[in-house]
Amino acid sequence: MNFVSDNLAGASAPVMQAMAAANDGFAAGYGNDAWTKRVEGLFAELFEREVAVFLVTTGTAANSLALASLVHPWGAVLCHHEAHIAADECGAPEFFTGGAKIVGLPGDGCKLAPDVVADQLARMRAGAVHQVQPQLLSITQATECGLVYRPEEIAALKQAIAPRGLKLHMDGARFANAVAALGCSPAEITWKAGVDVLSFGGTKNGAFAAEAVIVFDSADAGQMPWRRKRAGHTLSKGRLIGAQFEGLLADGHWLDLARHANAMAARLASAVEAAGKLRLAWACEANEVFLVLPQQAQAALAAQGIQYIAWSDAALPEHGRLQQGEVVGRFVCSFATQAEEVDRLAAVLATL
Amino acid sequence: MNFVSDNLAGASAPVMQAMAAANDGFAAGYGNDAWTKRVEGLFAELFEREVAVFLVTTGTAANSLALASLVHPWGAVLCHHEAHIAADECGAPEFFTGGAKIVGLPGDGCKLAPDVVADQLARMRAGAVHQVQPQLLSITQATECGLVYRPEEIAALKQAIAPRGLKLHMDGARFANAVAALGCSPAEITWKAGVDVLSFGGTKNGAFAAEAVIVFDSADAGQMPWRRKRAGHTLSKGRLIGAQFEGLLADGHWLDLARHANAMAARLASAVEAAGKLRLAWACEANEVFLVLPQQAQAALAAQGIQYIAWSDAALPEHGRLQQGEVVGRFVCSFATQAEEVDRLAAVLATL
Amino acid sequence: MNFVSDNLAGASAPVMQAMAAANDGFAAGYGNDAWTKRVEGLFAELFEREVAVFLVTTGTAANSLALASLVHPWGAVLCHHEAHIAADECGAPEFFTGGAKIVGLPGDGCKLAPDVVADQLARMRAGAVHQVQPQLLSITQATECGLVYRPEEIAALKQAIAPRGLKLHMDGARFANAVAALGCSPAEITWKAGVDVLSFGGTKNGAFAAEAVIVFDSADAGQMPWRRKRAGHTLSKGRLIGAQFEGLLADGHWLDLARHANAMAARLASAVEAAGKLRLAWACEANEVFLVLPQQAQAALAAQGIQYIAWSDAALPEHGRLQQGEVVGRFVCSFATQAEEVDRLAAVLATL
Amino acid sequence: MNFVSDNLAGASAPVMQAMAAANDGFAAGYGNDAWTKRVEGLFAELFEREVAVFLVTTGTAANSLALASLVHPWGAVLCHHEAHIAADECGAPEFFTGGAKIVGLPGDGCKLAPDVVADQLARMRAGAVHQVQPQLLSITQATECGLVYRPEEIAALKQAIAPRGLKLHMDGARFANAVAALGCSPAEITWKAGVDVLSFGGTKNGAFAAEAVIVFDSADAGQMPWRRKRAGHTLSKGRLIGAQFEGLLADGHWLDLARHANAMAARLASAVEAAGKLRLAWACEANEVFLVLPQQAQAALAAQGIQYIAWSDAALPEHGRLQQGEVVGRFVCSFATQAEEVDRLAAVLATL
Repeated sequence: MNFVSDNLAGASAPVMQAMAAANDGFAAGYGNDAWTKRVEGLFAELFEREVAVFLVTTGTAANSLALASLVHPWGAVLCHHEAHIAADECGAPEFFTGGAKIVGLPGDGCKLAPDVVADQLARMRAGAVHQVQPQLLSITQATECGLVYRPEEIAALKQAIAPRGLKLHMDGARFANAVAALGCSPAEITWKAGVDVLSFGGTKNGAFAAEAVIVFDSADAGQMPWRRKRAGHTLSKGRLIGAQFEGLLADGHWLDLARHANAMAARLASAVEAAGKLRLAWACEANEVFLVLPQQAQAALAAQGIQYIAWSDAALPEHGRLQQGEVVGRFVCSFATQAEEVDRLAAVLATL
Repeated sequence: MNFVSDNLAGASAPVMQAMAAANDGFAAGYGNDAWTKRVEGLFAELFEREVAVFLVTTGTAANSLALASLVHPWGAVLCHHEAHIAADECGAPEFFTGGAKIVGLPGDGCKLAPDVVADQLARMRAGAVHQVQPQLLSITQATECGLVYRPEEIAALKQAIAPRGLKLHMDGARFANAVAALGCSPAEITWKAGVDVLSFGGTKNGAFAAEAVIVFDSADAGQMPWRRKRAGHTLSKGRLIGAQFEGLLADGHWLDLARHANAMAARLASAVEAAGKLRLAWACEANEVFLVLPQQAQAALAAQGIQYIAWSDAALPEHGRLQQGEVVGRFVCSFATQAEEVDRLAAVLATL
Repeated sequence: MNFVSDNLAGASAPVMQAMAAANDGFAAGYGNDAWTKRVEGLFAELFEREVAVFLVTTGTAANSLALASLVHPWGAVLCHHEAHIAADECGAPEFFTGGAKIVGLPGDGCKLAPDVVADQLARMRAGAVHQVQPQLLSITQATECGLVYRPEEIAALKQAIAPRGLKLHMDGARFANAVAALGCSPAEITWKAGVDVLSFGGTKNGAFAAEAVIVFDSADAGQMPWRRKRAGHTLSKGRLIGAQFEGLLADGHWLDLARHANAMAARLASAVEAAGKLRLAWACEANEVFLVLPQQAQAALAAQGIQYIAWSDAALPEHGRLQQGEVVGRFVCSFATQAEEVDRLAAVLATL
Repeated sequence: MNFVSDNLAGASAPVMQAMAAANDGFAAGYGNDAWTKRVEGLFAELFEREVAVFLVTTGTAANSLALASLVHPWGAVLCHHEAHIAADECGAPEFFTGGAKIVGLPGDGCKLAPDVVADQLARMRAGAVHQVQPQLLSITQATECGLVYRPEEIAALKQAIAPRGLKLHMDGARFANAVAALGCSPAEITWKAGVDVLSFGGTKNGAFAAEAVIVFDSADAGQMPWRRKRAGHTLSKGRLIGAQFEGLLADGHWLDLARHANAMAARLASAVEAAGKLRLAWACEANEVFLVLPQQAQAALAAQGIQYIAWSDAALPEHGRLQQGEVVGRFVCSFATQAEEVDRLAAVLATL
């Protein structure tokens, strides 16, 4: 049983079928194929407006390209200090931007609060040549701790950065899970709330390797074609990504997958809470469950061969600090997670 | 009928099947999966030695990562002025290397001669801080004009750069076609002839998006894992590329595909020569035919809806310069090209 | 009266004379002149060993070149979060290194403790491709809060980083003040304590624009000539910097200047302490005095036209936090500061 | 006798005096001093319009900052293949621009012709993501072979690039010599002829280390303050450069120096032509004389201890190619060159 990540399963069956179906015949290269074109239309429909769409194969590429298009080399990107762009991409944002500074901010559960952002901005002198200039705020939806930003929370963050003119980026590696959790429209938690550019994740939600940079204002998209090509992320057989997204977006398949993953996580969280043996590090709002595991629990899981990963405790709230021997265990559910697996895991945890 | 490029068809049936077969179950992420591990073994077998293998999805990424690992920002890369790295990658090598200089050299048919390389090196002062320092020679196999370097030609180039300590990179976007054409072993035209690092192309030869950087001396590979990750080219579901290569390398499938493509090109070239109406811009040595097309021929092809592209004439030999109205037409054959298509094209060309 | 910074006076008289004296006749370009060569010898003497010396005009250039020579683009530099390289150079280290990450650590008075460094290293996984790799620790001597590292403190930091193989860089913008304060030899607080590369500051200590990167192991210096040239920091008339350093280093002039500046600061600190009206934010160990200024004091200073700057309170110890209305005022003494000026300032502060 | 370069003498006496005079008292840091402010006014006067002025210490920095402010990382800069930015700055433009491509074009005497530029542009596809996009043309005034662009020649180049929207940069390392030679106003050969940004050289014309980037349209200057700081080129004691320029610009001193240097070169060229023993590689239009030197002449010069450098023959016209044993010798005159030195050199050359 593997709860390590939502990127360890392959593609969902409909996505795999879409890839296979896309294999026939000749197609124009470098993203000029029919699949990619159709996907651009599907995204416009999904977001209820014109959008510029750039398909790539990894989330790191999507995030880094989005940032590089909107931030100068002497710019600063504000984000949570545990954000993927800050902590897990080996400096890719710095590489793509030409050396911009990623400024990490605190926040329980990897969520940023408007006053924390405003305080940081107040400490960064506008126009001073000695310091990098804040140009973008990046938030993760759902966060690295599985929490979800509500539309009004996003709007409040946008309001905090508006006086200084920062752009708002959303790392949506688990955007589908957030939409499914909130029951809102994609538009509501993106451009309607102030998001300028979105990394729309497919890979963690049933695709093999498919991410889309969605730029809401075409004026922000001008650099993307060159930045993408120059980074080696413009696939010659672009339909490989296009087909995956067509498979995902058709008939709301992407949301069905996310709802399933979320349901599995909720099932696990409920069972844990019902058992009353372990505490959740953060509320379960999307497809991840973070449990505070005493040593006994760690041993039990190891004995049962249940795979998960020990997660950073850096975003725990003050009142939730770990005791000696405890770790935060991350259990991620994906489209491929089975209810029986969740129940078996819950059973193991309940017998501690 | 589409002779525009060998990257317009999808994947060969066995490759597509390998991808589909790889879709089941969980697999370790970021290239630690079983497919990738097996492919590393297959490459070691293919090259008859230990090699370090780094899978990526595009040739631009493969080339740029290879260069960046071996060249300082103040280094220079020598190559043909029409080489893909110099002319078709939007400055990706400059991006990945941190601004190294790509120095373009002349050569008929995009082939470099040792004396041209040596002359260039003689013009670059060793140790002078005012000039970038030559650190790598990159050759393309087969060349952008469809010509093939023989093992002894490669060895002679290595000899030309050895006194200055340059590394030798081979852009093998059409490596399979070259191996098939030469009938030699992969080892013979790579490390045995002095190649230090190879971009082994899969995408133009039946894969969807699969390229491998093959590093022959592990001492040259140390930077690659970080450079790849940092460029967003480390796929979380790495088996997507691994499976493609497993499909390609199994049972010599990659060579079968290349032999077919070469045979189709040879069939076209022979027919053209037999008809005696058009001249070849360069000899047909691999899977591409370059024809000098007078206006009448261009019109006839357009009338028949036959697709090809007008190619640069910059690597034509002195005695082969174009006349007024002529263009060089590039006709590329791939694994998917049918003999009947070739014959129909040949028939059109024969009736001019 | 101006206590804003030690870079607001011009050059000391002997330095200015050395510059004027260097103006005659022709001299070899680009650092091959006699002045630069002599200065290289003087530094070797000063540090009691062979050193590689690279002269530049700014501290930002010195620091950034030093870092870039020793850190990969995917490397991380540990330093205090208020260090000049982290907070005051507009991302120059990121620019020169190709996007390495500057990781800011806490520490009272901008001094780093070995356990803080070791804890940070423990959180950075060695060999993981998802994270940047720590490759260098940079400390500032004297610190941005005017404190001084003793030889054994530096050695302890070196010990903390040794297991992970990090290099140790010292930003010595106020190196002279530290040496004067400690009464030790330059060797003792640099290479003998584990420093690999030093930015030796001249500009804040009586030069006009003269900084030297001192590399103690020549194996670490190989990239510098190209990196410096490529950054536009190789002056054609290099004697302009060479002469300044010759003026500074002759007859211990640099130490005389620093001793004077330190004495002026000590005079001010003593007077403040004697008056008992204001508290020092940090101990006065070199040439800077940081005072906690209530609003009344700020008003009195403004009324007297006494210039200083409000300094960051981010490196204050827990027990020293500011009260409402207070600021930290930085008063810097330089070679040009007069005792009467100090006394007048002290008098103003004593009458609060 | 040293004719190697115009950067081997120190500063002219008035410039040195201006530096010494600037040494008194405190001054605001980082270019906010009175000298820099006055120099900004002097440049506005000189160019008969508002200009944005950025002082730096080297020509490489001036050129690279100018380029980086106007060219994207995926942009291309067109220039002569022997231009300083292409051949003598160790890739600094690539470093500062984040990897833009420097595209070298041919031209006798390092002068570019409009049709050569237009032909190159025609070969670069607008909007194609596979290729870097031309964004700037850089010309050198006077050229690396000592030739001068006339206002109408500059205007014609501007016309050639206007349809593609390229900016026009002038590397004016020897701008003073060109103005002196042409007898025109600085405005006439810069913004009135279409130049957008100028590297105004001081160092080769009597300063110690003083260059100015002059931006004619303030909309082009927005990035400069950050790019300069981030490159370590914002001197804290900025008056060091400001004073040099004040010395140079006062009372037309800069033009007097250039006229003298030009006159010395003309004296040498006339003498050589009168003697009829040697041919000039290119016409003497500014302060440099390029002579085709047979082996006998090389030996005679060596015997007399006369220093010059062998120059590239790559920009010789077809009809002027070197014979076996010949080299191009470059003899540069500066403000410090004496008539007697010229005459002694001429005498040596006349006796061959």
